[in-house]
Amino acid sequence: MFQIDINCDLGEGFGAYRLGADEQIIPYLSSANIACGYHASDPLVMMETVRLAKKHGVHIGAHPGFPDLMGFGRRSMLVSATEAKAYVLYQIGALYAFCKSQAVPLSHVKPHGALYNMAVKDAHLAQAICEAIREMDENLVLFAPVGSEMQKAAEKIGLKVYREVFADRAYEEDGSLTPRSMEGALITDSEVAIKRVIRMVKEGKVLARTGKDITIQADTVCIHGDGSHALTFAKQIYEALQKEGIQITR
Amino acid sequence: MFQIDINCDLGEGFGAYRLGADEQIIPYLSSANIACGYHASDPLVMMETVRLAKKHGVHIGAHPGFPDLMGFGRRSMLVSATEAKAYVLYQIGALYAFCKSQAVPLSHVKPHGALYNMAVKDAHLAQAICEAIREMDENLVLFAPVGSEMQKAAEKIGLKVYREVFADRAYEEDGSLTPRSMEGALITDSEVAIKRVIRMVKEGKVLARTGKDITIQADTVCIHGDGSHALTFAKQIYEALQKEGIQITR
Amino acid sequence: MFQIDINCDLGEGFGAYRLGADEQIIPYLSSANIACGYHASDPLVMMETVRLAKKHGVHIGAHPGFPDLMGFGRRSMLVSATEAKAYVLYQIGALYAFCKSQAVPLSHVKPHGALYNMAVKDAHLAQAICEAIREMDENLVLFAPVGSEMQKAAEKIGLKVYREVFADRAYEEDGSLTPRSMEGALITDSEVAIKRVIRMVKEGKVLARTGKDITIQADTVCIHGDGSHALTFAKQIYEALQKEGIQITR
Amino acid sequence: MFQIDINCDLGEGFGAYRLGADEQIIPYLSSANIACGYHASDPLVMMETVRLAKKHGVHIGAHPGFPDLMGFGRRSMLVSATEAKAYVLYQIGALYAFCKSQAVPLSHVKPHGALYNMAVKDAHLAQAICEAIREMDENLVLFAPVGSEMQKAAEKIGLKVYREVFADRAYEEDGSLTPRSMEGALITDSEVAIKRVIRMVKEGKVLARTGKDITIQADTVCIHGDGSHALTFAKQIYEALQKEGIQITR
Repeated sequence: MFQIDINCDLGEGFGAYRLGADEQIIPYLSSANIACGYHASDPLVMMETVRLAKKHGVHIGAHPGFPDLMGFGRRSMLVSATEAKAYVLYQIGALYAFCKSQAVPLSHVKPHGALYNMAVKDAHLAQAICEAIREMDENLVLFAPVGSEMQKAAEKIGLKVYREVFADRAYEEDGSLTPRSMEGALITDSEVAIKRVIRMVKEGKVLARTGKDITIQADTVCIHGDGSHALTFAKQIYEALQKEGIQITR
Repeated sequence: MFQIDINCDLGEGFGAYRLGADEQIIPYLSSANIACGYHASDPLVMMETVRLAKKHGVHIGAHPGFPDLMGFGRRSMLVSATEAKAYVLYQIGALYAFCKSQAVPLSHVKPHGALYNMAVKDAHLAQAICEAIREMDENLVLFAPVGSEMQKAAEKIGLKVYREVFADRAYEEDGSLTPRSMEGALITDSEVAIKRVIRMVKEGKVLARTGKDITIQADTVCIHGDGSHALTFAKQIYEALQKEGIQITR
Repeated sequence: MFQIDINCDLGEGFGAYRLGADEQIIPYLSSANIACGYHASDPLVMMETVRLAKKHGVHIGAHPGFPDLMGFGRRSMLVSATEAKAYVLYQIGALYAFCKSQAVPLSHVKPHGALYNMAVKDAHLAQAICEAIREMDENLVLFAPVGSEMQKAAEKIGLKVYREVFADRAYEEDGSLTPRSMEGALITDSEVAIKRVIRMVKEGKVLARTGKDITIQADTVCIHGDGSHALTFAKQIYEALQKEGIQITR
Repeated sequence: MFQIDINCDLGEGFGAYRLGADEQIIPYLSSANIACGYHASDPLVMMETVRLAKKHGVHIGAHPGFPDLMGFGRRSMLVSATEAKAYVLYQIGALYAFCKSQAVPLSHVKPHGALYNMAVKDAHLAQAICEAIREMDENLVLFAPVGSEMQKAAEKIGLKVYREVFADRAYEEDGSLTPRSMEGALITDSEVAIKRVIRMVKEGKVLARTGKDITIQADTVCIHGDGSHALTFAKQIYEALQKEGIQITR
């Protein structure tokens, strides 16, 4: 029996602002990455999003980002490793309070945006993030791409890692994501994207951008919660996986 | 044998800014109220302040405030009870992460500034704060003035309360603090202030502003960490209490 | 020939967030109140909104609010008069830069949310706001309700005032807005609202909540840019006024 | 007769926080770079600092930085050129309001910290900043190092530039600042620093780090307002320049 986790960023509103269709998309997920007030979200949004995840039995993860609400955490910031560690601890702790308050476990951590992208390549930053996670709770799972510095740092430190793949992204032969700046980086055809995910789950393989078949191991698939097609795609991939007998769970 | 807790706000720096003389004042305390990033402090400051408190064996408390860094949390904000609850949860959780990371317990909560002052009088706000604390950890102690709505809400909900007195403030006959706007609200003579504290601890009494002797029960005395005389006063009261055989502890 | 100004709050997005349908609603306006980065908006949004207003020939006003992005400036904050004056100057100046950059005049100021509501009743706050406006540019027009402390302060100081009425709000016999907490405070029937506005413009009269006809002078009508019916209502009132031969202009 | 401008960053406090000894240092300056609320400062601090500069007859400049109060604008942020332009416009406008309010001119702009350092090397960023300045007011002077991309962009666009030198920094043979990471980057001996400044002003020459004499043209000298020796050094350089018959002015 095959199984896979599907994760999505939720709780990205702030104050009077809403972003994404959390209530519509959550039935198709097994993991929710909840923003923690630095790049998005605020305490009320976090409280509501934890409530929503609990109601749907979806695993809750912290989604810490850079302190850059104006840039939605998407802009690289050259913070020190100590700053990064402190920022991640702060945000995990803040989300933990809402989980504790509602008697539901906090189970994973996935860095957001520029913090995620930088930590994929930067060993010092990756280590700082992993230390923060382990010091908060050694049972938290890190979501990170295969072969990334984050994966390496987590394994070195004894943190459990969920190898994350992206349904809508192309891969290079070394298993890394094709940079967004390159042609063909995004898989825009939903059917193709879904077939690729199914093959990653069942065969542990994916066709690299170059045309070569590569080995890839997927523990969790990231889908997006915003954009006009997000909800449609979430439903499609959910139904396709179920039809293939792949259980969406952790 | 008499004993009393002495608490002070610490960790009130932010980014490049420093406030107060934390390292100098901490030897004279048994409890530190650490700011949590809303009215003051940031993750680096919190990490360092928890380290400092741990090193000195001082009990750590969360000191949540309004989201008003520009006003240092001293300005009343008409937030809803739900907002207040969410803000308090967020901030306690954030500080908890640094305690957990450094394997030191979080032991109390004292709201800051305008949030404290409003919750003294507003039963709904007080209840929201107490719910947040209890839902985070039912063993956390609330620091609140005797007779305040905070004390009432905490007792109603089953939270332990430390009755807080202020060394440098006058009291009315009903045990409430003399409003700062009234003449004589501040006790500016250190010796008088210290004698009042000693009497509160040993006799459970204090002379009200009106000249009448009233009963007052003190579990913790608040001293201030900023201002030019803060450090001198901290040392004076510490030494005076020791000389009187009053143990500074919790 | 009758004429009236129609104003609406625009540019209320922030970072990745959007709010309101600025591009759709602006053809029906003669004045835009542009948020200035404190309760909403950011420099990119301001730059784009000034561009949009210029393109449509709509008068630009600054819409300063409290420094409370999390609460969208809707929560009362007990700031001092000096703080209020400084906050208003800061925000007007920031918006002015985008007007200057695009060679379009800044022509009015309308405080936002809780700042507006508090300044309606608080003479000190109203005076601080009016001083800020006059010191920035004595030709700026203040939008304020008839009979408000803002109107009084502006007249005392020599600032021009546009008396503002609300299409969807009931009035008391003294010309003040019926508090939102009272039944009947909101005019929910679009046709009724439009007829009331037309009568205010043509006859200078409106039926108070009590049923008594009162005198009211309107220089500008506030309509709302968010909410599901905002766009429909903007179009309806625009067309109705045109049909009545009332010019929408300043 | 020789003359030179001496500039220093002022108004770097925020809320309850103070930084630097503005009142003590301002008598030794001819130009003040005033923070604008993004990396430091707030409207009250800006209002007071403009007042202080006006009182001392010191030229006022805007000192815009990245929206990173927590990092004091010292951390590189990969913002787009359009974002940078908008941020600079916003901040210049905000400070302009306080100048206008107090009837004192705004005369220059000096980017702060990481924004300054990045714009020294990044032509696109430099151009964006220069466009913002010129669109706000074509008479504003840009403070920038000789040979920097900022200087080039300003000249291309027709902005006046003040070539800025640093009293306490070493120079490479090409006239660029020795990176702080290199040994000898900082001139720690006050007497040496002052002699170098005098020679830059009188002879247009300075000894590069390598020991070679290079040509350098200085219109303004940057001194620092924080740090324990700042005030002493400001006084020393002021007196030394006066003794040499060099007028401190613009």
